[in-house]
Amino acid sequence: MKNDLILRAARGEQTERIPVWLMRQAGRILPGYRKLREEVKDFKELVKTPALACEATLEPVNLLGVDAAIIFSDILVVPEAMGLDYQMLESRGPFFEKTIQTAKDLETLHTGTTENWSYVLEAIKLTSGELNGKVPLIGFAGSPWTIFAYMTEGKGSKTFSVAKRMLYSNPELAHALLKKITLTTINYLKDQVKAGAQLVQLFDSWGGILSPEAYLEFSLPYISAICNELSGLVPVIAFPKGAFFCAKELAKVNCQVIQLDWTVDPTDARQLLPGKSLQGNLDPCVLYADKSVIKTKTIEMIKKFTIPSGGYIANLGHGVYPDIQIDNVRHFIDTIKEYKL
Amino acid sequence: MKNDLILRAARGEQTERIPVWLMRQAGRILPGYRKLREEVKDFKELVKTPALACEATLEPVNLLGVDAAIIFSDILVVPEAMGLDYQMLESRGPFFEKTIQTAKDLETLHTGTTENWSYVLEAIKLTSGELNGKVPLIGFAGSPWTIFAYMTEGKGSKTFSVAKRMLYSNPELAHALLKKITLTTINYLKDQVKAGAQLVQLFDSWGGILSPEAYLEFSLPYISAICNELSGLVPVIAFPKGAFFCAKELAKVNCQVIQLDWTVDPTDARQLLPGKSLQGNLDPCVLYADKSVIKTKTIEMIKKFTIPSGGYIANLGHGVYPDIQIDNVRHFIDTIKEYKL
Repeated sequence: MKNDLILRAARGEQTERIPVWLMRQAGRILPGYRKLREEVKDFKELVKTPALACEATLEPVNLLGVDAAIIFSDILVVPEAMGLDYQMLESRGPFFEKTIQTAKDLETLHTGTTENWSYVLEAIKLTSGELNGKVPLIGFAGSPWTIFAYMTEGKGSKTFSVAKRMLYSNPELAHALLKKITLTTINYLKDQVKAGAQLVQLFDSWGGILSPEAYLEFSLPYISAICNELSGLVPVIAFPKGAFFCAKELAKVNCQVIQLDWTVDPTDARQLLPGKSLQGNLDPCVLYADKSVIKTKTIEMIKKFTIPSGGYIANLGHGVYPDIQIDNVRHFIDTIKEYKL
Repeated sequence: MKNDLILRAARGEQTERIPVWLMRQAGRILPGYRKLREEVKDFKELVKTPALACEATLEPVNLLGVDAAIIFSDILVVPEAMGLDYQMLESRGPFFEKTIQTAKDLETLHTGTTENWSYVLEAIKLTSGELNGKVPLIGFAGSPWTIFAYMTEGKGSKTFSVAKRMLYSNPELAHALLKKITLTTINYLKDQVKAGAQLVQLFDSWGGILSPEAYLEFSLPYISAICNELSGLVPVIAFPKGAFFCAKELAKVNCQVIQLDWTVDPTDARQLLPGKSLQGNLDPCVLYADKSVIKTKTIEMIKKFTIPSGGYIANLGHGVYPDIQIDNVRHFIDTIKEYKL
């Protein structure tokens, strides 16, 4: 590895400078990505064509100078691998024609195997070869609860009330579905690691709509199970978006890194998550501001995360928004890379 | 007052039984409301016709036996009073044709006066007369930040990135707009109290999308200013949805009651909000479950809120969802009313 800063920071080591990458760095902020999207039928074609997914993955490494690549893909590879197809509707997000509501629906799902996600593995192998040790490659998956939310709700939602209804009205069925998703996700992530992923991130994008009690019953145990299975293979970054209310329990999960959203104060996080490396967490909207504001806010964030010292990977608190200027993204990255520890 | 339980609980008094009401109790869960909606052109006609708003307000008191009425209205009365008109699009929510982006836009707005919201005052007077002391009548408004979010974004949003962009790129303009909204809201709520509102609730529905730093700069001070102005008039219930990350600072706000969303553990709330009465906070999705689950979860909640004792008003952690069965809502209410303290 020519640049293993992120791997060392993930293991809790103090690095000579702070490593940085951005969630959704391979996306609409970049000219090459926008061009790629024009050339394909839809988002899913990009995800399913290894050469194109590889191209999208590499662009931010070359253009922005980030310290990691994250494979261009989608968390909904997993439901599709299990037998539940979806469409990605332009500017409306995912849509599942069929959803899981009954035990009979659940029976129609299988625990996906390598052949169901071979296109992702192919993209990882290609990218890994192209990177040739320049920076580490991150693999990822959705948390079981987040995948469950899409498979039962069938689309994005403000409340996910259909998904949550099942937790309270049929918890046995909910757990059975969550277990099936978890098994699939474990196989999927292990395959990603075999193919060349050097870290993996678990996105619990919808953890924050659960009550603490429901989070501890329906989300955290499944994240935990995945982390246990990956333990010793690669560092795992867990992203419990909006679920810092369970910080004490998150601290006990067998993962190396916690990604924080921007509603969490870094000082609180250092205190409540002892022994974890931390990743995050600037409000993506700061990147709409003038360069001087970006610099000030970024340095304020860095200072909070690095006192007391501990593994730290700079990032935003959420995926970068598509209409943010690339120059502002660069200014964020450069501010971090130039910061003297 | 025949039933002043909520007023006493708001003042921190121990009541002989726990009072209860539901956010959005005057809504689609009720047959009379659904009928009313069929008879009018749109939602706004209902808001703007005092006799109909009164009818909608009274229905849950008579049909569900809740311990308070909340005036049927909308938080967007305020932007309209300031000169920014909106439409309420069926199943899509509010839409503003014009939004506030510049200092010039801000100049076009005025600080609303009594005549701009006279229809709300008329509805309060009518309802107050009809209630005739049966239960207290709650008035309400949006928090300045939440109103700001709609006035700048122009519609609902997952990220409110247009609204938040202004906070970072033009904080002076943001504060100027927030001040104008605050002044208007103070006048509006004082008028509601004069007309007969006996408590008021401030809905900070979008506080939770801010970083703690931004919340303390752009939301909390304006909530605080309103509470100070209403101090001594009526008890104020503040609802910092998703913003419990600023619990320590919320504890210092000059309001009597804090409404909690369902992501907050009641035990944590009692500890972090000493001296405040608390309102909430069952996950609305629990009301989709069987009656036995509703009862168990409701009693679990009550026990956490009443140990140690302190002013407590039972409610959900969010407005009741429109497709929840009325029998389940009744079961929630009855469980609370029958609970022996």
